[in-house]
Amino acid sequence: MDYLAGKQSVRLKEPVYIMGHACVAGKKEGEGPLGKYMDLVVEDSLFGKENWEEAESEFLKNAGEIAIRKAGKTPDNIRMGFCGDLLGQMIASSFGMKDLDIPFYGVYGACSSAGVAISLAAMAVHGGFADMAMAGCSSHFASAEKEFRYPLAYGNQRPYSATWTVTGAGACILGNGQALSSALLSSGTDKKYNILVKGFTTGVIKDYGVSDVFNMGASMAPAAADTIYQSLKDFHMEPGDFDCIATGDLGAVGQKLLFSLLEENHLDISRVHMDCGMQIFDEEKQDTHAGGSGCACSALVLSSMILPKLQTGEWSRVLFVPTGALLSQVSANEGRSIPAIAHAVWFERSMP
Amino acid sequence: MDYLAGKQSVRLKEPVYIMGHACVAGKKEGEGPLGKYMDLVVEDSLFGKENWEEAESEFLKNAGEIAIRKAGKTPDNIRMGFCGDLLGQMIASSFGMKDLDIPFYGVYGACSSAGVAISLAAMAVHGGFADMAMAGCSSHFASAEKEFRYPLAYGNQRPYSATWTVTGAGACILGNGQALSSALLSSGTDKKYNILVKGFTTGVIKDYGVSDVFNMGASMAPAAADTIYQSLKDFHMEPGDFDCIATGDLGAVGQKLLFSLLEENHLDISRVHMDCGMQIFDEEKQDTHAGGSGCACSALVLSSMILPKLQTGEWSRVLFVPTGALLSQVSANEGRSIPAIAHAVWFERSMP
Repeated sequence: MDYLAGKQSVRLKEPVYIMGHACVAGKKEGEGPLGKYMDLVVEDSLFGKENWEEAESEFLKNAGEIAIRKAGKTPDNIRMGFCGDLLGQMIASSFGMKDLDIPFYGVYGACSSAGVAISLAAMAVHGGFADMAMAGCSSHFASAEKEFRYPLAYGNQRPYSATWTVTGAGACILGNGQALSSALLSSGTDKKYNILVKGFTTGVIKDYGVSDVFNMGASMAPAAADTIYQSLKDFHMEPGDFDCIATGDLGAVGQKLLFSLLEENHLDISRVHMDCGMQIFDEEKQDTHAGGSGCACSALVLSSMILPKLQTGEWSRVLFVPTGALLSQVSANEGRSIPAIAHAVWFERSMP
Repeated sequence: MDYLAGKQSVRLKEPVYIMGHACVAGKKEGEGPLGKYMDLVVEDSLFGKENWEEAESEFLKNAGEIAIRKAGKTPDNIRMGFCGDLLGQMIASSFGMKDLDIPFYGVYGACSSAGVAISLAAMAVHGGFADMAMAGCSSHFASAEKEFRYPLAYGNQRPYSATWTVTGAGACILGNGQALSSALLSSGTDKKYNILVKGFTTGVIKDYGVSDVFNMGASMAPAAADTIYQSLKDFHMEPGDFDCIATGDLGAVGQKLLFSLLEENHLDISRVHMDCGMQIFDEEKQDTHAGGSGCACSALVLSSMILPKLQTGEWSRVLFVPTGALLSQVSANEGRSIPAIAHAVWFERSMP
């Protein structure tokens, strides 16, 4: 029996639950509109560490620990972890995961990494390769500026289309029905609905030739449009079948482009669309230009807003579509275009 | 039904076949002992491109194309690709995969990436999420020196414990029984045995505090020892049950350390152990110090030597254990230690 749906999607037929999820945010994110819904807001951007990279690892580690605790489990119960970040050789994930001692696969999709990690963790649980799996990702404003643009001390200026890398980390614990029952027994949670991963769509790399590193939204919009179009087609769904179609970090500039690209396929998602990058900060008060970005952007919005709305029953079905720009400082310096990718995950509430 | 074996392994019970595999090697690798078994040796280290990074992408793309052709398929038959490399933000994989137009998940395990990619592709096929999946990885001497050490033009010297990053790429096409039958019908292959992926062990990150970037073998040996020990325990196997236990790129220095670490657990693998890093070059003639390294090192030896020996029946069972050092230039410059990981894949021949 297989679970193939259409050209590039998978429809899960056995239950895969989000048993626990957590978001650990930086100071600026804590001051944003979703700040009060974060599990932990860390005022010190170094998180007590010596450098930005170690700080980012600490965010991931804390998000993982809280998510595991909220799932009513301990790290040694988690069979596999799938994590990614934006840094070269993904040192934030590796150094963050080494203390948790969870068997580990590194994944990469730039700012779409939350989608990669959750899709693969769902595969591992649904396939019977893990009773519980962790999906996590992180980003940090200061480590990302150093990696992709300039060290902060340079004080360079940023155009309006630029986004602000979110500092923080998110983690989800996925588990099968048996894992969920054992957790409910031990933690006695009182949430109204459970959350299921019902399916996912694997993205294809799209490259429309954009090479402006201060306009990631434009490079990622074609990938988001392609994955959303394909996902709806593969699952035989209309935009209105979802309470929300949430892209990762297109920002205000990328959103406009997304709508016009989907219009070419006669798809109008404007009534249900939300961009995580436009939720995490208050643009007027926080001066973050086109919005938030980074792996943690969609991960924080997922855990502080999207999953809670499913748990309370306010929403019943969400298509989560984080987007990633697959460039590096080297490829940008070589003048090459920015390929992008978007991965979709279909979440749905279910009776507990 | 699940497939959990012991603490951190998975035993696959439905057939997952290696339907096709390919290795594309650079000039130096082509002059090494395995050169004549490569599918393609590319004399031009730029592979006709403008820079080392694009060249590396071209190696990956070619390995993928040849593996797909040898599997009797076309790229549009492949449901998912899992690829990784050593470069920041994995641009070799992203730029290499974008032309193949295969739905894509980036994976990272440094030089253990071949193990990550094959394990995840096997999960995807076994779980029914893909009828056929591609696993690939690449490395390039010049792009790696630029990323991790110094641009070649600096002409820096290297200690004996240093390894030589392999230029090339390897790819495998994994498929289920139905996919294999359809391929056999169309390509009429005459190989003696099929190859099955029977299971895998997910590595845990190990950090013994080694921080010498010119001695990766020492940083990776503890991870290799841990994964081999756990894999044998989880599968209830003895070293002698395998014709070969192949580590990735420990080199001569790391191999000694591996043996002594396993001895502490009363395990002697010396009779069946082979290190891919010690196979790919002729150390005496090619002046490569402790041996080869890089994602492509284990991938080339897998496709040019290990899988062919299973196909001809010379070997019947192999534990493939590529190892990865999870550092970056940034973490090294910060004086941090080198965490490492090793992932094991159990291959076995089967009657065609």
